[in-house]
Amino acid sequence: MALIVQKYGGTSVGSPDRIKNLARRVARFKALGHQIVVVVSAMSGETNRLINLAKEIMPEPDPRELDVMVATGEQVTIGLTAMALMELGLKAKSYTGSQVRIVTDNAHTKARILRIDEERIRADLDAGNVVVVAGFQGVDENGNITTLGRGGSDTTGVALAAALKADECQIYTDVDGVYTTDPRVVPEARRLKSITFEEMLELASQGSKVLQIRSVEFAGKYKVKLRVLSSFEEDGEGTLITFEDPENKDSNMEQPIISGIAFNRDEAKIMVLGVPDKPGIAYQILGPVADAKIDVDMIIQNMGADGTTDFTFTVHKNDMSKALGILNQVQGHIGAREIRGDDKIAKVSIVGVGMRSHVGIASQMFRTLAEEGINIQMISTSEIKIAVVIDEKYMELAVRVLHKAFELEEA
Amino acid sequence: MALIVQKYGGTSVGSPDRIKNLARRVARFKALGHQIVVVVSAMSGETNRLINLAKEIMPEPDPRELDVMVATGEQVTIGLTAMALMELGLKAKSYTGSQVRIVTDNAHTKARILRIDEERIRADLDAGNVVVVAGFQGVDENGNITTLGRGGSDTTGVALAAALKADECQIYTDVDGVYTTDPRVVPEARRLKSITFEEMLELASQGSKVLQIRSVEFAGKYKVKLRVLSSFEEDGEGTLITFEDPENKDSNMEQPIISGIAFNRDEAKIMVLGVPDKPGIAYQILGPVADAKIDVDMIIQNMGADGTTDFTFTVHKNDMSKALGILNQVQGHIGAREIRGDDKIAKVSIVGVGMRSHVGIASQMFRTLAEEGINIQMISTSEIKIAVVIDEKYMELAVRVLHKAFELEEA
Repeated sequence: MALIVQKYGGTSVGSPDRIKNLARRVARFKALGHQIVVVVSAMSGETNRLINLAKEIMPEPDPRELDVMVATGEQVTIGLTAMALMELGLKAKSYTGSQVRIVTDNAHTKARILRIDEERIRADLDAGNVVVVAGFQGVDENGNITTLGRGGSDTTGVALAAALKADECQIYTDVDGVYTTDPRVVPEARRLKSITFEEMLELASQGSKVLQIRSVEFAGKYKVKLRVLSSFEEDGEGTLITFEDPENKDSNMEQPIISGIAFNRDEAKIMVLGVPDKPGIAYQILGPVADAKIDVDMIIQNMGADGTTDFTFTVHKNDMSKALGILNQVQGHIGAREIRGDDKIAKVSIVGVGMRSHVGIASQMFRTLAEEGINIQMISTSEIKIAVVIDEKYMELAVRVLHKAFELEEA
Repeated sequence: MALIVQKYGGTSVGSPDRIKNLARRVARFKALGHQIVVVVSAMSGETNRLINLAKEIMPEPDPRELDVMVATGEQVTIGLTAMALMELGLKAKSYTGSQVRIVTDNAHTKARILRIDEERIRADLDAGNVVVVAGFQGVDENGNITTLGRGGSDTTGVALAAALKADECQIYTDVDGVYTTDPRVVPEARRLKSITFEEMLELASQGSKVLQIRSVEFAGKYKVKLRVLSSFEEDGEGTLITFEDPENKDSNMEQPIISGIAFNRDEAKIMVLGVPDKPGIAYQILGPVADAKIDVDMIIQNMGADGTTDFTFTVHKNDMSKALGILNQVQGHIGAREIRGDDKIAKVSIVGVGMRSHVGIASQMFRTLAEEGINIQMISTSEIKIAVVIDEKYMELAVRVLHKAFELEEA
């Protein structure tokens, strides 16, 4: 007998029929003798409906009151889900985030979980109930309703699994696992049976949308065994997200060098050219950008030939003109020759735990791109990732040739 | 400065524009220096939408889970209402029934309020907030979400007014007060400036739908000054519901004899004819009916000429065939000659505190009906009410001629 937390997203609870499907799946697990906690999102479309309703009243909705409204989305789903389970003859009981209590800080619309009182859930499980919990929401120390921000239901699932010391946290979604890359770009893309937390984090941060990044961090921190599965397939085994045990690297001999390829075109590149190469220049450039709450992703500084340096970084496309405006104001102060922006770029990353013990991965990547005539504009690396910025028109081509070069289509 | 509780029903919060209207009204009261607690219902149609959604999953929805779902209706409205008030520059804060806490018993879908923790609301009011509370809902001692049943928002309003010792509880609705009778039947019907609690109770129980009967009982018990007003009129004074002070009957010399005429066609008449006139017969007839949870309204027993008696009572039309089925089973046992049902009846009642000090009201009522050729099938009286059952086709006629006979169109 295992304790399993199953999280179902908005499309998996998008209609009464889908909720009944979900209930049948839970019943099959229950019949095997497992204890089940179900975490559900709002029915697809509902959260947006509520936000739009709020905006009709208040164009920039008050965060506390918006949370009060938006939290009703999951509250409806937990009631429906518990009833669907009862219709199958199971005992079931629903909880809002407040009722559990999933205690968060008071950062409305993007709250963070502080702790979970799991005693009532455990008592209900021991009494034979399936416990249904509203994802995405909690309550602060003063009883105010909070929400965790978009995708927060994944985090609720993982946090509950951690608090209950569950054997596994299953995230049901509309894909059947984590792929070597997006199958819409590379038809040969292959589902991974397992992937490490670190790789998953890199893939997620590089644009792979399977899991919310916070939930992966949470799972890693609390060593929660996490599995991504399709809610529309009956017997899929999905992708298991595992820990690599640092004491036992040899066990990873079979680990493929590269696990996956991520890509996105959400970023824009900003070049600050011909600045004097002196200490403090990076801070003088990025300080004002950070003060304006603009997130910066890649940062590269290149020494020029003439005692000046070129400083390049990427921001979200939506922030490019704001960042350029800020830099134009300080251009004189920092002594830059020119400031230039480019939002016609894409970022392509190869990710794999294996690469840290293999030399030559980077050169193979660069050669593969060069053979196709794709110019690399920026490079950034971590122990398990190499990311390059290229012209966005080559993005799909780059992903396809890299997928083939690293033989990702083969199991 | 007064403390006023204002309750707004589903049509008054039925759209963002109506919620903005509501907020402007609250702002006018606030500008006069009053402290305001606003109690809101779900947006019109929302409660039914949620119930129907539940029924798609579970034809007879689990009461606990149904309450979890249905309570979201008001939760959305409190968020919207608080934001609408903020948009006008007011400070506002919303509370669900759980958050207040409005503690109820655990009779899901028809819970009764046990107590209200009013400290947080009072603190918020003292800090200058308009406090917005979800009607219709509460929480039991174990933290389960409960609802008070249909119309329960009125009860929430009155209960909050009692707990806060408010100066007045204003119930905003789509009519502008309590009328002598339904203006759709008698165009000359007149709005009453005031009416006693007892009269209001009798009118409500006889089919006048202005206020939920429980809220009137509650107001009477806790001596809450209650006023019914239109949410679509700016300066109406509505109808004040008052206490008649039993120590001070002379102050009511100006009291009209009759305050209003109520009517309904929701009932059916069941006749049990020719039963032996012996002790215990009423119990033998009504016991099985009560066991089947069928509510009985009027009960009349007439001695017959031949040592038998005729026993007649009324039930809701929906229960008639069920009641007849039960009685047919026990007919032999009770020795009744015949059992007969009639659902083509209407009940018309005249209500007025004044009638208890005036003889001749009943005879005037009966004469008025007789002059129109309307046969009276049953009569039942209380200290402040006379109700008759007649053929339903005469209902409107009866109401009109009685309204005229008792000069209700005159102020």
